[in-house]
Formats: sequence, C-alpha cells, structure tokens
Amino acid sequence: MRAAILSVGTELTVGRVQDTNSRFLAAELTGAGVDVVEARTVGDDLGQIAQAMGALAAVADWVLVTGGLGPTADDLTREALARWTARPLVVDGRALAHLEAFYRDRDRPMPPINRKQATRPRGARLIANPHGTAPGVMLRLPGGPVVVLMPGPPREMQPMFRERVLPAVRRASGRVIHSRSLRLVGIGESDIETRIADLMGSDPSVAPYAGLAEVELRVATSDPDARRARSRVDARVAAIRERVGQWIYGEEDDTLEAVIHRLLLLRRETVSVAESLSAGRLATRLTRVAGSSETFAAGIVAYATRTKETLLGVDPDLLRREGSVHPEVAVAMARAAKARTGTSWALATTGVAGPTPGDARRPVGTVYLGLVGPGGEVVREAHLFGDRDAIADRSAQAALVLLWQCLTGRDPDVPTLPSASPTGRP
Amino acid sequence: MRAAILSVGTELTVGRVQDTNSRFLAAELTGAGVDVVEARTVGDDLGQIAQAMGALAAVADWVLVTGGLGPTADDLTREALARWTARPLVVDGRALAHLEAFYRDRDRPMPPINRKQATRPRGARLIANPHGTAPGVMLRLPGGPVVVLMPGPPREMQPMFRERVLPAVRRASGRVIHSRSLRLVGIGESDIETRIADLMGSDPSVAPYAGLAEVELRVATSDPDARRARSRVDARVAAIRERVGQWIYGEEDDTLEAVIHRLLLLRRETVSVAESLSAGRLATRLTRVAGSSETFAAGIVAYATRTKETLLGVDPDLLRREGSVHPEVAVAMARAAKARTGTSWALATTGVAGPTPGDARRPVGTVYLGLVGPGGEVVREAHLFGDRDAIADRSAQAALVLLWQCLTGRDPDVPTLPSASPTGRP
Repeated sequence: MRAAILSVGTELTVGRVQDTNSRFLAAELTGAGVDVVEARTVGDDLGQIAQAMGALAAVADWVLVTGGLGPTADDLTREALARWTARPLVVDGRALAHLEAFYRDRDRPMPPINRKQATRPRGARLIANPHGTAPGVMLRLPGGPVVVLMPGPPREMQPMFRERVLPAVRRASGRVIHSRSLRLVGIGESDIETRIADLMGSDPSVAPYAGLAEVELRVATSDPDARRARSRVDARVAAIRERVGQWIYGEEDDTLEAVIHRLLLLRRETVSVAESLSAGRLATRLTRVAGSSETFAAGIVAYATRTKETLLGVDPDLLRREGSVHPEVAVAMARAAKARTGTSWALATTGVAGPTPGDARRPVGTVYLGLVGPGGEVVREAHLFGDRDAIADRSAQAALVLLWQCLTGRDPDVPTLPSASPTGRP
Repeated sequence: MRAAILSVGTELTVGRVQDTNSRFLAAELTGAGVDVVEARTVGDDLGQIAQAMGALAAVADWVLVTGGLGPTADDLTREALARWTARPLVVDGRALAHLEAFYRDRDRPMPPINRKQATRPRGARLIANPHGTAPGVMLRLPGGPVVVLMPGPPREMQPMFRERVLPAVRRASGRVIHSRSLRLVGIGESDIETRIADLMGSDPSVAPYAGLAEVELRVATSDPDARRARSRVDARVAAIRERVGQWIYGEEDDTLEAVIHRLLLLRRETVSVAESLSAGRLATRLTRVAGSSETFAAGIVAYATRTKETLLGVDPDLLRREGSVHPEVAVAMARAAKARTGTSWALATTGVAGPTPGDARRPVGTVYLGLVGPGGEVVREAHLFGDRDAIADRSAQAALVLLWQCLTGRDPDVPTLPSASPTGRP
C-alpha cells in the first residue's frame, strides 16, 4: 500500500516554520507497513493545493494532508478538495452544533468565520478533533484513493492521526512490517558496503545511513505474516553480524554514550574527562543519558594551554617542548583527570581544530586521544576533517569509540576513524 | 523568480530523519526575494527522482536538490539528473584529482566506489565542497531552468548554498534584495510581535524566527535600486531598535558567544565556567569562536554532587542542607572557577534537567545561574522547559544571556527567560 503526504501552508514555503508533520506521518506510516512514495509542501494557494492533491492521488492509495483547516481566509484545504473533486461544500449539522457548543462552553461568541470549519465536501465524513476547533475530513474517492485532511498543529494532528486515521490505514493494509537497526562505529559507510555487498538485497532491504562518524544499517521487510517477516530480518541481521559484528555497538535507538553508560554500570566503574579541543562535548555526550551521574563524575575543560598546567598539572617542560597537541599531553591529561576525580577511567582529547594550523607536523584535524583505565593507558592519533565545530564533534566521538572498544575488548587496532593509529593499549 | 526544492532520501520518506534542508533553503530563497512554489521529498529511487526533477523544472526557474550525492549504490541523484536530461555522466578530471588528494592527505586508499562522486552530467559544472567528498552539481538547461544538486548533510549543504549557489541566484534575479537581521535575547517572540506589531508591514517585510531562546528579526525588501532598498530597510531597523533595542545583542550572523568574545577582548578580560546541568555546553559555546582561547580559559564540569565539593570546594554542609540545586551553590561554583583559573569572570550553572524531579520546591527545569565578575556577584533563577537535553541547552543559553547583560550594562532585571528572576547583581 502506498501513501503520499501533503503539507499546506505559506509559513512552510517561506521557511518560517519547520514542518515536523511530514516526518511524523512518514515514520508512523512506515511502521504500519505503508510505503511513503512522496511528500510535498505547497503554500496557501487554492489552485496549487488542488493540483497537488490530484497528482498525489494518482500515485498513492492514501493522501494525507495537513494544514489549511483553520477559519481564516488563507485556510483553503477544504475548498481545494471540493474544487478538485467537483463536489459542493455542505454544512455538517453535527459538526456545527459541536463547534457552537465549544464556544458556548468557553462563554465566547462563535466568530462567524469559524462556521466554515463545520463544512465538508459532499460524500466526505468529518473526523472529530478533541484538541481544537478544526475537525478532520476523510473522503474515499471512486476508484480507490482515500484523501484525509488533518489540522496543521502537531498537538491536534498527531492524536487525530493515531486514534482515528491509522486504524483505518492498518485495516486496509493487511501487511506487517518488521525492521531492525544496527549501529556501527570505527568503520566507514563505503567500507561496510564493500564487506556486505552481497547481503544488501532488496528483501529484506538493507540501507546504510551515515551519522556523525557512525553508521546505521536498517534491515526491513514486510509480510502478511508477522513471524515470517521477523525471521527473515533476524536471519539477515545474523549474516551481517558475522561480517561486521566487531564494529556494531548497539541496535535501534541506542547511542554510543548510552551503551558506554550501561557497560560502566555493569562493571561498577566510572569515568571522567579532560578536554582540550572537544571543549565540553565529551562531558555533554556522557551526561545525555538519564542517570548518568552514576557513571560520569566530572570533566575538566583545559582549553588555554596554561590551564593544562594549572588545572591538570601537565609537565610545563613537556608543554614548552612539544606544545599541547602531543600524545604525551593527552595521556598526562587523562592521568590527571583520573587522579583528581578518583574514577576508574579517564578520557582526554587534545588537537588542532583550526582554523589556524598547529604547525607543519600538526595540521588542522590532528587529534590525540588519551585513555587511562584500570588496566593501563592507551593513546590514539586521529586525523579528522571538517570545519572547526565538526572536528571538535568528531574528536569527542573518536574518544567515545576508543573507550567503548577498550570496555568491550574490541581490538583497538581497528582504525576507528580516518587514519587513526593506536600507539599503545591498556 | 520562482524556485522549487527537492529533498532526496529514503531516510526521509520512512521518517527516520527530520528534513531541515527544505526549511533552510525556503528561508534563504525567500530572503533573497525568490518565491518558493513547492517542496518535494522522494526516496532513493532513480525513476522518482528524475520524474520529480522534471515536474519541478516545469514550474520553477531554479530547482534545488539535496541528498543522494554520496558514493554508495543508493545515492542516485547524479544519475537521475543524467537520465532525465538524457546526458551521459562524465568524469571531471579536476574533481577526481581533488578527491584522490583528499584521501592521500589522510593516508587512506580511495575506495573505488567514491570515483562516481567526481562525475557530472555532460554540460554541468561541479561546485566545490570544502566540507566533504561530494561536490555539488549545477546544470543550466536549454530554455532556462537551472538544476542544482547539493549534498544532504546540512553542514556541507549550507555553506555550499550560501557561498556558491545563492550568489548565482541573486545575480539572476535582477532586483536587489536588501535585508538585515537583528538578533534578540531575553524576550519572547510574541512579546516582540506585540511591541512592534505596527512595524511588521509587508514592505519592508519583518519576519521573526525563533531559535534556542533567541529570536531573529529579519527585515527585507527588494527594489531595482540598491540604495532605495537599503534606506527602506535601515529606516525600519532604526524604528525597531527604538522599541526593542535593549534586547538586541547583534546583527546578521552574530552569535551570542561571538559577541561576548569581542566584548571580553575589548575589555582585556577573560571568563571561565563551572557547570553542573549544562555539563560542558557552556564551554562548547564559548569555544565555538575562532581565537576563543584569548578570552576563555577553562571549565570544570562538576556533575556528580560529590565533585562540587572535591573539584570546586563548595561547602559540604551547604550541599547536605540544600542539595546541589540552590542559588548559593551556583555562586560558590562560580567563585571557585574564578579562583582556580584567575579569570575576570566566572559563570556557573546548576539545576534539574530531569527526567526525575529534584523535589517539590525544585521541579524539573529549575535552574540557578551564578556569575562572579570584577565588580561583584549575581544569581539568577530560571524555569526552563523541554526535555532533558533542551533544558541543558537552554541553561547554557540563559547563562550566556546573563553574562552579556552584565558586560553591556543592559538591565539584568529584564527577564531573560520565562519567569527568570534575578536575586542580585554585580
């Protein structure tokens, strides 16, 4: 079954408001096994709305429209549906009574312009809106496609979709979709594809999505039988795990920091950080997990070179001799964080984020990561790319990858990032 | 002049990723006086991408496409443009050399599949991408419409659009657009609208855009004559400044942290931070500015309660008696940061980010901000909303607003955030 989404509103086409309805509907429909073929956005223009409805109904079984159901002159979605289907707009008696009661309950006179919210194209039925004055509209057209109009505000649209529209979509669909997501770090998207090229068939589908120095592999299929769908996906996931399992840190909505938090909890261990170029990002990541104060103690952002000496006690001779971007500085920073906070692990970052280069040996993007743990110390060198902010973000990610690899015993010789090269290990 | 936007990617049609590119492009194009007639989203399907390009080129002078320029098999945007325009894909020698150099610089072999990123439909030109491996593509079609392909990741797309595409759009337009953006903090969007309602006419247009606890007011007009456009905008900006000037911290691409950095540089002063719930975000913000090590010294993230005592020397009796979410704790944290780093100013955050509430007096969102400066101390209480991450982000923003107000002598009695109430001042 195929669906298309139409978002209506000039606030969207001028970029004043971020459309979140399309994504919500796309995710809900996909979860119900419906194939979303297209999403469109047009402004508050009667002709354009009607034209888009017609084009989408030609390619989809369900056309889900949001926005343009308000009472004002630029709310034209109802009128567009009436025009496109050549049906008159009729007043729905029950909806009008409901609307009048809504205002009576609030001791306010109903503005005359609101009357149009009780109208519908002939043959359509209205969908109650418990959260606002605009009811939805559902119209099944001869030949099949169903057009659904819903209000634009997410707090009205979402419950209406979930409670009234989705059940009708599910009844009509008859198929169940099953999917699993694998999350990988320490390996690039194209390297993964090379290793699993023969497993990337069309059923189950296997789609890679690149994030910030991590990749999600989504494995999905649909089937009238839920068990069959599940077992096809599970078999494909097992085959993928055999090839690239060492880089898989989690599934579904796992984050690297959440996985690290759980590993530390299990081991009754804690972590602290000493940051230079990542400048607080490592602490931010490690505290994004609810309950993180059980495993994350504290961080020190020693940004100005002098503060590596004053706050962390890094050897001033070393700093004078080598500058602050040096593997020994990274380890000394981690040692100091561990000593000052008493944690089991400490993680440190130092590097050149740019825009001005460090020196000939240390171009922009050169980063050293230091990790001191219960069993020893490790330094890793990485060469990261992007602008100042991206390099800083990636340095925090690279540090978390190093910690995860050491916590799980994954081979830290595995390059975690472009040309990362470990020079030791715990 | 009319433009249409096409977003390509199955991650969008399955609702896994929120498309933010369309809104960015819609706002930028609108700001340049271009009418955005439609935005569309399709999955990674060669036929659908090609079909959408054709349909959009029929209604727009510019078709701006994002996504699908990666190296993998499901990146099909280049191929779709070639198919729709019936042009062969040719290898661009300069782009290939650039790509090979990119990998050589990183001491990695170029994966063979990346080679396709150096291809373009015959007659098209490539647009350099300083932030990634995928160059953009620009193709002017016979009869007028220009199709532009840009990478999907916003941090690659946005600079490419602003630096390389937008200037070409502007040159083609014939009218001169003049716009100025004012940036406000410490006041909400609806409060601003109430104060300047009569100034929000249609020419110049005045559009508010709400960001993270800040508002951008964009004033724009277009005119064949550049001087006339400029003077209309300047007059409107002056009128707006008279009403809400005390909340304006900057213009155009200013960020609050960049303005603070400049103010500190001028005063030859420095700042350090002590963070609890913001957990590194203040340090991250203050170091986003190139050259920030001249004004930002260091930060201490004292996240676990115990570390407020061990790293910052906050009175253990106070912590036992009041817990860590307390105005005196915020000031004590700031005092300690100032003492340990020797900076002119120190800024501290403590509060309840959730999801579990602090206690009856300190519900989720309660935040105390402490600031210690050359002239004294100030504490502010704020009540922030959103999920755990949003509250932490907003606490860093609220702290920066407090510092900016004190650096500029803006009245810190101005509520900076919903029900913020200062309890003292330097």
